[in-house]
Amino acid sequence: MRPEAAVNYFVMSLLPVDDQVLINLAERSYPIWIAGGLLADAQTYLDVPSATAAMVVTNTTVAPLYQARLVAALRGRYQHVHTVALPDGEEHKTWQTLNLIFDALLRNACDRKTVLFALGGGVVGDMTGFAAACYMRGVPFVQVPTTLLAQVDSSVGGKTAVNHPLGKNMIGAFYQPVKVICDLDTLSSLPAREMSAGLAEVIKYGPIADMAFFEWIEVNLDALLARDRLALAFAVRRSCEIKAAVVAQDEREAGLREILNFGHTFGHAIEAGLGYGQWLHGEAVACGMVMAAHLSCRLGRVDSAFVDRLTHLLERAGLPVVGPVLPAPQSTLPGDDNAGRYLQRMRTDKKAHAGEIRFVVTGPPGTAQVQAAPDAMVRQVIDAVCG
Amino acid sequence: MRPEAAVNYFVMSLLPVDDQVLINLAERSYPIWIAGGLLADAQTYLDVPSATAAMVVTNTTVAPLYQARLVAALRGRYQHVHTVALPDGEEHKTWQTLNLIFDALLRNACDRKTVLFALGGGVVGDMTGFAAACYMRGVPFVQVPTTLLAQVDSSVGGKTAVNHPLGKNMIGAFYQPVKVICDLDTLSSLPAREMSAGLAEVIKYGPIADMAFFEWIEVNLDALLARDRLALAFAVRRSCEIKAAVVAQDEREAGLREILNFGHTFGHAIEAGLGYGQWLHGEAVACGMVMAAHLSCRLGRVDSAFVDRLTHLLERAGLPVVGPVLPAPQSTLPGDDNAGRYLQRMRTDKKAHAGEIRFVVTGPPGTAQVQAAPDAMVRQVIDAVCG
Repeated sequence: MRPEAAVNYFVMSLLPVDDQVLINLAERSYPIWIAGGLLADAQTYLDVPSATAAMVVTNTTVAPLYQARLVAALRGRYQHVHTVALPDGEEHKTWQTLNLIFDALLRNACDRKTVLFALGGGVVGDMTGFAAACYMRGVPFVQVPTTLLAQVDSSVGGKTAVNHPLGKNMIGAFYQPVKVICDLDTLSSLPAREMSAGLAEVIKYGPIADMAFFEWIEVNLDALLARDRLALAFAVRRSCEIKAAVVAQDEREAGLREILNFGHTFGHAIEAGLGYGQWLHGEAVACGMVMAAHLSCRLGRVDSAFVDRLTHLLERAGLPVVGPVLPAPQSTLPGDDNAGRYLQRMRTDKKAHAGEIRFVVTGPPGTAQVQAAPDAMVRQVIDAVCG
Repeated sequence: MRPEAAVNYFVMSLLPVDDQVLINLAERSYPIWIAGGLLADAQTYLDVPSATAAMVVTNTTVAPLYQARLVAALRGRYQHVHTVALPDGEEHKTWQTLNLIFDALLRNACDRKTVLFALGGGVVGDMTGFAAACYMRGVPFVQVPTTLLAQVDSSVGGKTAVNHPLGKNMIGAFYQPVKVICDLDTLSSLPAREMSAGLAEVIKYGPIADMAFFEWIEVNLDALLARDRLALAFAVRRSCEIKAAVVAQDEREAGLREILNFGHTFGHAIEAGLGYGQWLHGEAVACGMVMAAHLSCRLGRVDSAFVDRLTHLLERAGLPVVGPVLPAPQSTLPGDDNAGRYLQRMRTDKKAHAGEIRFVVTGPPGTAQVQAAPDAMVRQVIDAVCG
């Protein structure tokens, strides 16, 4: 631990910490609240739209932990508080699961003022947001993320979606929540593997936007892994600030916002290639960032020391840095190989234009761009990173 | 036929007819073109966004009539013009059918600049628009309506949706097309039953917004039924003008736009109660307008002469004016009757708030409002109109 960086941490954490970040999107602006004890406090919900009914959408893992407390906190504000628990896991992020929300809403005769609450991780948040976007052509929703990944990334910015067998998040909408409530207490119950997966998205903000934050993470990683409240508060807030600044400039991903997908082009290929649910999203993104860093290096944007530094930090955070060999599909073509399978998956990435894959690359560190790369170079990267 | 109204028709049709109507929605504004010969003319598509690929979505009835001509007209502008033909009918307006569009887009590796073309009636338009709203979180789409109902109503205004077993259009989005192309030639091939169903929505604009137009329809109904080009051109344009004015004031149906649903609250109960595909949407709306007129009369907004006048015009247009008895569900409750089944269906209408049904009523003729009504009064109306 380098002393000057350690000082940096204390300076940052001793500053008066604002526990709110605003997402500035004109009439769609909304606040992110970041603190402990928010979830069960009725005061937290006073500025959320009133209605006759609310619907808490969660999953079967989170329901026994937090559902009763959230429902109790909402009872004062809504005459009816309905609940629906989805099966847990990325492999259930499908239209079939989404329909469980619609069925519950319609069975309970929920009208178009009903407020949905997404209680859970990224999958619950993405599906609840998409359900809110579509139910009666749009009802309000609130994000109550209970995982680190959801608090620092997926609950913020209004990207909602479900997966399609041919691609991740292919069916969805840009639809902003009315509020995001990050209760830091929920992170204490998070399994280590999910904590690490969330750290992948926290670490991501360094290479693309803020190397001082990256250095802070290097110094304070152990505190984060130990769920130190002060460290978590700072990491969540800084991540949300960076994401908010990017989203405010480019809500619908016409350009700048694509940099938030650093590591995701390779990562989505891993997730889809292995089958959803095999690797956690954050794990695939971590390994994808290693690949994206190697590509940035081959493109002359960063040096190999930076690649090693990023790889080392991800490894310390408990994340995979060796790429998986993707299983061959049943109808194997002549010449089909692992790199070919990655390339095939990446050509259906949403950033691709006319079949040309567009990669988010970093360099100089703390900045990112989207650009194409020769297939041969991408193959070298995949071969170098895959075990 | 009253002579002064006949004169009125000639005055209107001899005026220089503008064949464009603009939907004014700031950065989401778009034009409606209304004329013969548009569909197969490559010039029609010059102001539509360019891209590598276009996808024509149609149904198995419309495909053999117009698909080849539209594809040929698009070939100069798009390198790839893909097609997908959905099964025909309201009973196929489901998520399962919607998925056929997503499957076709992903199998053809369509990127997020791909332009969708909805070639067909209201069901094709609603599903293509919703697919465009959701595919990769939004791609542009063009409406090419080939039925009267779609040209005067459903293709204009950006309401897109699919049905859910528990309610019509429950899952959808407000998502505007980039252009609407009403080729009047397509109406010559329209079966008489669908022509009548379209006239229901044309007639609707009278009671809610323009009794002079209503009178014009009374005088020129025979010309419309005979597919007189001049009469059709005027009816489509005037309908689009009225709809455009309403939508421009209230895109997301926060208030005023609800008046466009005159007859639809009762009509949706008929469609869902009988099972989608039994009655055409326009037929259910026609019968629903008779019920809504009776309710308006009982509420003291119009006199019984107006109810008779509207009923007579709908009947002349070949539309049903006697309500169907809805079949009893399998689990019949004690006291369940036909009016009760209508009421039960209407409580899940999207306009309902907290279980209170909100009806679009007319009065004085040429204006409309949304209001509640006592259950007992609604029962009397249903009993009076149902055979």
